[in-house]
Amino acid sequence: MLKIAVIGGGSSYTPEIVEGFIERHHELPVKELWLVDIEAGKEKLEIVGNLAKRMVEKAGIDCTVHLTLNREEALIGASFVTTQFRVGLLDARIRDERIPLSHNMLGQETNGVGGFAKALRTIPVILDIAKDMERLCPEAFLINFTNPAGIITETVLRYSKIKAIGLCNVPVNMRKAVEKVLGSDDFLFHAIGLNHYVFGHSVYYKGKNVMPELLPKLMADSEFNPKNIEDIPYHNEQILNLGLMPCYYHKYFYMAEDMLQHAIEDYHTIGTRGEVVKQVEKELFEVYKKADLHEKPVELEKRGGSYYSEAACELINGIYNNKKTHMIVNVRNNQTLPFLPEDAVIETTCLITDAGPRPLSIETLPLQVQGELLHLKAYERLTIEAGITGDYGTALQALTVHLLTKKGAVLKTVLDEVLLQNKDYLPQFNA
Amino acid sequence: MLKIAVIGGGSSYTPEIVEGFIERHHELPVKELWLVDIEAGKEKLEIVGNLAKRMVEKAGIDCTVHLTLNREEALIGASFVTTQFRVGLLDARIRDERIPLSHNMLGQETNGVGGFAKALRTIPVILDIAKDMERLCPEAFLINFTNPAGIITETVLRYSKIKAIGLCNVPVNMRKAVEKVLGSDDFLFHAIGLNHYVFGHSVYYKGKNVMPELLPKLMADSEFNPKNIEDIPYHNEQILNLGLMPCYYHKYFYMAEDMLQHAIEDYHTIGTRGEVVKQVEKELFEVYKKADLHEKPVELEKRGGSYYSEAACELINGIYNNKKTHMIVNVRNNQTLPFLPEDAVIETTCLITDAGPRPLSIETLPLQVQGELLHLKAYERLTIEAGITGDYGTALQALTVHLLTKKGAVLKTVLDEVLLQNKDYLPQFNA
Amino acid sequence: MLKIAVIGGGSSYTPEIVEGFIERHHELPVKELWLVDIEAGKEKLEIVGNLAKRMVEKAGIDCTVHLTLNREEALIGASFVTTQFRVGLLDARIRDERIPLSHNMLGQETNGVGGFAKALRTIPVILDIAKDMERLCPEAFLINFTNPAGIITETVLRYSKIKAIGLCNVPVNMRKAVEKVLGSDDFLFHAIGLNHYVFGHSVYYKGKNVMPELLPKLMADSEFNPKNIEDIPYHNEQILNLGLMPCYYHKYFYMAEDMLQHAIEDYHTIGTRGEVVKQVEKELFEVYKKADLHEKPVELEKRGGSYYSEAACELINGIYNNKKTHMIVNVRNNQTLPFLPEDAVIETTCLITDAGPRPLSIETLPLQVQGELLHLKAYERLTIEAGITGDYGTALQALTVHLLTKKGAVLKTVLDEVLLQNKDYLPQFNA
Amino acid sequence: MLKIAVIGGGSSYTPEIVEGFIERHHELPVKELWLVDIEAGKEKLEIVGNLAKRMVEKAGIDCTVHLTLNREEALIGASFVTTQFRVGLLDARIRDERIPLSHNMLGQETNGVGGFAKALRTIPVILDIAKDMERLCPEAFLINFTNPAGIITETVLRYSKIKAIGLCNVPVNMRKAVEKVLGSDDFLFHAIGLNHYVFGHSVYYKGKNVMPELLPKLMADSEFNPKNIEDIPYHNEQILNLGLMPCYYHKYFYMAEDMLQHAIEDYHTIGTRGEVVKQVEKELFEVYKKADLHEKPVELEKRGGSYYSEAACELINGIYNNKKTHMIVNVRNNQTLPFLPEDAVIETTCLITDAGPRPLSIETLPLQVQGELLHLKAYERLTIEAGITGDYGTALQALTVHLLTKKGAVLKTVLDEVLLQNKDYLPQFNA
Repeated sequence: MLKIAVIGGGSSYTPEIVEGFIERHHELPVKELWLVDIEAGKEKLEIVGNLAKRMVEKAGIDCTVHLTLNREEALIGASFVTTQFRVGLLDARIRDERIPLSHNMLGQETNGVGGFAKALRTIPVILDIAKDMERLCPEAFLINFTNPAGIITETVLRYSKIKAIGLCNVPVNMRKAVEKVLGSDDFLFHAIGLNHYVFGHSVYYKGKNVMPELLPKLMADSEFNPKNIEDIPYHNEQILNLGLMPCYYHKYFYMAEDMLQHAIEDYHTIGTRGEVVKQVEKELFEVYKKADLHEKPVELEKRGGSYYSEAACELINGIYNNKKTHMIVNVRNNQTLPFLPEDAVIETTCLITDAGPRPLSIETLPLQVQGELLHLKAYERLTIEAGITGDYGTALQALTVHLLTKKGAVLKTVLDEVLLQNKDYLPQFNA
Repeated sequence: MLKIAVIGGGSSYTPEIVEGFIERHHELPVKELWLVDIEAGKEKLEIVGNLAKRMVEKAGIDCTVHLTLNREEALIGASFVTTQFRVGLLDARIRDERIPLSHNMLGQETNGVGGFAKALRTIPVILDIAKDMERLCPEAFLINFTNPAGIITETVLRYSKIKAIGLCNVPVNMRKAVEKVLGSDDFLFHAIGLNHYVFGHSVYYKGKNVMPELLPKLMADSEFNPKNIEDIPYHNEQILNLGLMPCYYHKYFYMAEDMLQHAIEDYHTIGTRGEVVKQVEKELFEVYKKADLHEKPVELEKRGGSYYSEAACELINGIYNNKKTHMIVNVRNNQTLPFLPEDAVIETTCLITDAGPRPLSIETLPLQVQGELLHLKAYERLTIEAGITGDYGTALQALTVHLLTKKGAVLKTVLDEVLLQNKDYLPQFNA
Repeated sequence: MLKIAVIGGGSSYTPEIVEGFIERHHELPVKELWLVDIEAGKEKLEIVGNLAKRMVEKAGIDCTVHLTLNREEALIGASFVTTQFRVGLLDARIRDERIPLSHNMLGQETNGVGGFAKALRTIPVILDIAKDMERLCPEAFLINFTNPAGIITETVLRYSKIKAIGLCNVPVNMRKAVEKVLGSDDFLFHAIGLNHYVFGHSVYYKGKNVMPELLPKLMADSEFNPKNIEDIPYHNEQILNLGLMPCYYHKYFYMAEDMLQHAIEDYHTIGTRGEVVKQVEKELFEVYKKADLHEKPVELEKRGGSYYSEAACELINGIYNNKKTHMIVNVRNNQTLPFLPEDAVIETTCLITDAGPRPLSIETLPLQVQGELLHLKAYERLTIEAGITGDYGTALQALTVHLLTKKGAVLKTVLDEVLLQNKDYLPQFNA
Repeated sequence: MLKIAVIGGGSSYTPEIVEGFIERHHELPVKELWLVDIEAGKEKLEIVGNLAKRMVEKAGIDCTVHLTLNREEALIGASFVTTQFRVGLLDARIRDERIPLSHNMLGQETNGVGGFAKALRTIPVILDIAKDMERLCPEAFLINFTNPAGIITETVLRYSKIKAIGLCNVPVNMRKAVEKVLGSDDFLFHAIGLNHYVFGHSVYYKGKNVMPELLPKLMADSEFNPKNIEDIPYHNEQILNLGLMPCYYHKYFYMAEDMLQHAIEDYHTIGTRGEVVKQVEKELFEVYKKADLHEKPVELEKRGGSYYSEAACELINGIYNNKKTHMIVNVRNNQTLPFLPEDAVIETTCLITDAGPRPLSIETLPLQVQGELLHLKAYERLTIEAGITGDYGTALQALTVHLLTKKGAVLKTVLDEVLLQNKDYLPQFNA
């Protein structure tokens, strides 16, 4: 009997994952779908959970949707657990963005000080979930969407016995951009890097790697540059020198100053991304409430994060049916990148088996890419350590090592504000 | 138009490869099959070539079989070239075996002094073929069966621009042994090592690597131990300590003394394996001559090398149709085993794409396995260097570094005999 | 006969190196000291050269000082060649500082855009010198002071056959800071890193590494923090978490924002460091002119760069007499830091022999230090490549990879200004 | 107050070490010299101890020699502890040699089955000593002569907190051979490898590495080949191809067959080396007994092991006085050889400081040398593991991985005999 638990089931993304399970029910016969949330998310859970029930009912499949605030009940005997929760809800995200931006520093959901603060809040909670899983469903896979996905997945893999896989829609969109430019989907897309710092390394197609020919076309294609910030293009000369396809998030690094100015401008006018999302979500839940809605509403696409749940369903399907497809996921490095620790989590193309993903090996990367990845991974591991120990020096070190913070006196001020404003969610720092 | 050239087309294995192409013709529409051989092999080519024609005719497929002594003609425009030739024919193999055995040292077709001598003879010829391919079919894949397959494939990859893939039936048989003991074929078999020194590293099945549980059963199973020498079993304690599944050829290393005594006894009684094969081949060609034979005769199975051509057809099929199946082939290391050079050839599980095989990455191997593989690879690379330069010191170094030779005064004697008796085939040493 | 050539002999530092040779003449019997300069430096060469002659005469040693504008003449038969020249003189330095600072970006002599521009100007000249040396004194050691010393030394080692050693006074001062706090000079100071990004890794003293106990004291000591910017201290928590002793230049990284603001303020008030130095030099040469001056004047100490020439004389002495002392120099990595290329230049503690310096091996560094060093080395190697090829994309990549530049549209503007304003010194970009 | 404890003080080597301390007393003022032995060695301890007392008395230095069977008493407050004991005495050595030789396999004191058996017996005892030192003299250095020195030193470093340094006279003799051929002692001899598998990598002399020119001369020099087996020379072609200077023990590997036949012949005629040594020792102790003997007798030189104690005194002196000389010792690898584990012990040239030896870093070694060293180190670590756990499979694996054993059924027979005949000394296998 296939049972799936969705932690953060009251999320606005839930209709997409429910749709994914409905579409695959002929080969992925989910019998029980448990949507779990916390007290503070009860109302949303009711709304989105009832929509999920209507969707399943309309589809006529043999599947029961359960809504619960009792996580243990949801985990017992589950085969897959997905996580899409946000500790501190959107208000915490807005604080993550505002504190650093008020000091002219990046505060983004997954990068910069914002991602750092989110990691500190999430680490104690995800380890709590992992410990529950060790007791209640030790063989289950944890499919983690929760950002920063690389850091959170590595935390689970290193500090628990649970088989965690991190998932992100960024490489899915990169693959789709390649597909569009190439005019074919029959290729092997070899991606390598860290979550939100992943490169398209090669596109194996008709006898060879066509990335060199493809790269100039990709750079010129609008699909590759999401609409809202396509007015900040990469420097062509730099990307062609690199020879790899950057992901969208590389703009925070390679065009850092412009992205920062853009964010600061928004901060002073329309508000941060978190504030925008909060409004979008509010409207979405109004839509979800409609009793005559029996499917994923089109409005969800505005929310961003497209293909996220799609990817999750496909991954679960690949594992369940031992499909040996290839997907880009966050997985233990092993020796894939020999300059990183073996137990570091990387994001790369994997063969999907019923025993989890197996990464492909790869050629030596350009030295600067090695440097950037090692540097960033050092930041990630310091953040994990700070998230577990609550040590102030380690936290300051992590922020100093991050590529997108401003170093100096201001950094300590920012760290202090982060710790103060998140006090309620950082027990490890208050012990 | 799909054209395939078979170098050494007069080989007794040819009917198997022809059968493989016939069986797959619906998805692998071979239009032209060119069987190439040299003057000395003309008679065999005629015999086996005519059988091939009868087989194709009976199958009623749209494919023409060409017999030729003109290699260039066969290579022009080919998409795949397979190699299954033997420089110096079986008489050279018999000498390879007899010289060292007469000095109480291993002389085996691919290991020990025998494999070393075979490599020296083959290297100039394979590079000649590769140079022809660079002119006549630069985009073609070279599927190499010629032993020692790892050394020969690495030679082509490092000293030409041709996309070579080495193929061996040993891992195919290992996989079949696992399949038998497991009672299922729905698993991922991750093999790693060098040709004829390859290990079954893991068997991913229903959520985890079951190799630990499988290993004792494999050791006890007759399938795993080919009949003719099953009276020399591995030491169970050693293999269980290793934790990996050895291949059949590991007996030459882990049970070296017993294998050597066995070979010496044969040498003094029934003759070497080469002498036995010579007799088998003679009988086989008598069978092939029969005008009413229209299919691969059952007698071929006695010859050994089962699944060899099967694997070749499957590999060609996987590439041609970009199947993204996984197979165990000899391929450029890249960073799969970080302790080996990047341009070393290893034998491991790969994803098969139309741009060639992409190896899977793997966990850190036990230290002794790293040591053995690095030690053996050093031997292989010294042999390649000796095979290209014809330098005596390098040749002696290669033999000294090999794990299965006797070191000392006798080794020089043996090397001198090898060089003398193979004089006609070693232009590089006579320059 | 021991002959030494000083390229850039008209430098204000020359009196110090002359003094060093005088003091060591009993064991380092320099017979000929050739001060070489270019036409534009002729006047300075005369002034400082005459002072050098007066110093040598007063010391009464058997040594002749030669002044020349003919480099070849100076190099013939030299045993040691030192380089302390500045392509484009101080005016170029001032431009290096002003261009980026005018865009709120670091322009420092060796770091940031300033060091990058200086490298591009210096690379063609140093290679020209190395080519001359290959002809005229192929066995001589090149002792390189010219900044950025790591980049320039690596350029010579990788693109010529000359034995180059890079030298910097930063680690000399670090050692002196340790000595002061420890109250002893009988210790082994193991430093590791890149030029101007070097760490004190360990202080072996009385049975163990006392760095852990020493670090808090070092942080509190004024010697460790040069006076002019001691109002920008490191964050104690971060340095103690690091566990290594940073060098003075680490402030540009770990306290980047404060250092930048400090530099921008100076830029808008007293001028850049180059402008200050220009005034200091002018006054110094007035002092040098005095006919009754027969020794290094005390005013030289204000110039900065203390111990530079001292270190050079000690290094030359160590090599000449095969002293097997240990010094911190810039040297080929070999395998000292296995995550860097073997032919990268690193700055570390070496045993000094008459065949050059041999680095000590070291324990694994903290992951973030590995990341920072690999990242910076990637910048350095891109800069070397740009300096040799004159490729625009490589130059832009180098600046993008540097840790201290602002990434984005502004970076291209800055690069374009650098290339334009240095046009006369960048033949490689104008080909 | 400088106190030194000599474990195995009743050894015939003791007079040499006493002589070494006498000669260095002006700078290495040993106040107390404690000679420790076990009950079974009491008589020898008395004889050699009394000679030691007479030597010290005659030298007129301020030093007291203590004889004791109470190890704890000797260790309290010691600054250096040397170990030169033999578990099971010479009779055990003779068994180590006879068991494998009776099966036509190498049984040598440090290599092959003999060294393996000696390691198993010694590991529990050395760890016992180390545990005592942790209590009684935690800051003392353990200078280990006990063979196999690499394995024993690594055991202490990995399984206790004691600062152990392994010492061997082989590299001392290699350096002397270089000195003789070069006609100078003013060079840096960079040796690298494992104990009894160490190479002379380079000889830095007058501006460069002269090993390439030196190697042919070394091969031809009698000093390099100890007299007793100089009739088994290396193959010149192989050594010149290698480009490194092998040590004497490499003959067991590169000329294995001849060395084995030589040993088997001795075994059947004059007896094993242990039997010869037993007779030599008997005669030596007769000499030691003479009351009028006040110095190291010339007869000791026949015993072999020359320069052993000399090296020990020099090492102790170098540490005590923080001399920063360079010596070749067995030391933690760190990253010196990046293909070996960081906590592996290697034998290499080190800078000697009062905090212990710091190895020099080195260029990448030839691939076959990497392979041999990694392969041998794997054997050593399996032996350490077997010596600690007493696991039969691990022990069989260790012997299988060793390069000098015969693999197969006979190996198990030999292992079983080793375990049986050493039963009294292998508590770990009898638990």
